[in-house]
Amino acid sequence: MDPRLSFVTLAVADLAATRRFYLDGLGWSAAFDDGDEVVMVQVGERLVLSFWHRDAFAAEVGTRPAEGPPPITLAHNVRTPAEVDAALGAARAAGARDVRAAEHRVWGGYSGYFTDPDGFAWEVCWNPGPLGRVVVPDVDQGGTVQP
Amino acid sequence: MDPRLSFVTLAVADLAATRRFYLDGLGWSAAFDDGDEVVMVQVGERLVLSFWHRDAFAAEVGTRPAEGPPPITLAHNVRTPAEVDAALGAARAAGARDVRAAEHRVWGGYSGYFTDPDGFAWEVCWNPGPLGRVVVPDVDQGGTVQP
Repeated sequence: MDPRLSFVTLAVADLAATRRFYLDGLGWSAAFDDGDEVVMVQVGERLVLSFWHRDAFAAEVGTRPAEGPPPITLAHNVRTPAEVDAALGAARAAGARDVRAAEHRVWGGYSGYFTDPDGFAWEVCWNPGPLGRVVVPDVDQGGTVQP
Repeated sequence: MDPRLSFVTLAVADLAATRRFYLDGLGWSAAFDDGDEVVMVQVGERLVLSFWHRDAFAAEVGTRPAEGPPPITLAHNVRTPAEVDAALGAARAAGARDVRAAEHRVWGGYSGYFTDPDGFAWEVCWNPGPLGRVVVPDVDQGGTVQP
């Protein structure tokens, strides 16, 4: 089993709220939307983010997901610190909850957080380290990213 | 804010158990391992899966993650139904919990599940639809995947 993550599926309470935030608010496009159970967005060349109604999720996965803060974060990495601030502003304008202004991190990066309608936390991150460079398109992989 | 997911971070209780399962068991390689707080694995060309100790997660994210079944699944998509069965077998051999044999799904695919040491559910999936083809390397994007 090679190391490959293809889909990330989030259990959501209200797909209409999901659409308002991600599609109408952030301006993302649904690659698939069946109307009442699932909405999918392509978020990488080989990566899909799927929003699945909690009832359907529980029926297939076999467990009712826990309530409360999810034990995950999703990160949207960008090329410069200024892009971090801009993306957090866009998320706020789209109706994000709990937007927390970016901070310089001890490991050298700069990031802030917001949460989506179901409480999933997104980190918006500038990471000048090697793995930070790998994940961002159009960044010189060998050199230093100029903030 | 363009649609891009760069890092997926899972809050974990015991990084030693994480290493035993993903690194020793599945044979994945750590792209970064700081020893006591975080282990990162590259799981796509521009995608990193990060395992972060729950205490450090709570300190930065600002919320103590909920206990219980996480409201997410992670999917590992493969090229054929036979590869689904093989990957589930590899996960079982690596010490996965709750391995559930694959089933043919109403939407045309074939998938099964296992959970990691922290209860994160992975779906191993053959998805012959358009989005299923997009996420798998070395699949003819235009044609039909032959099971």
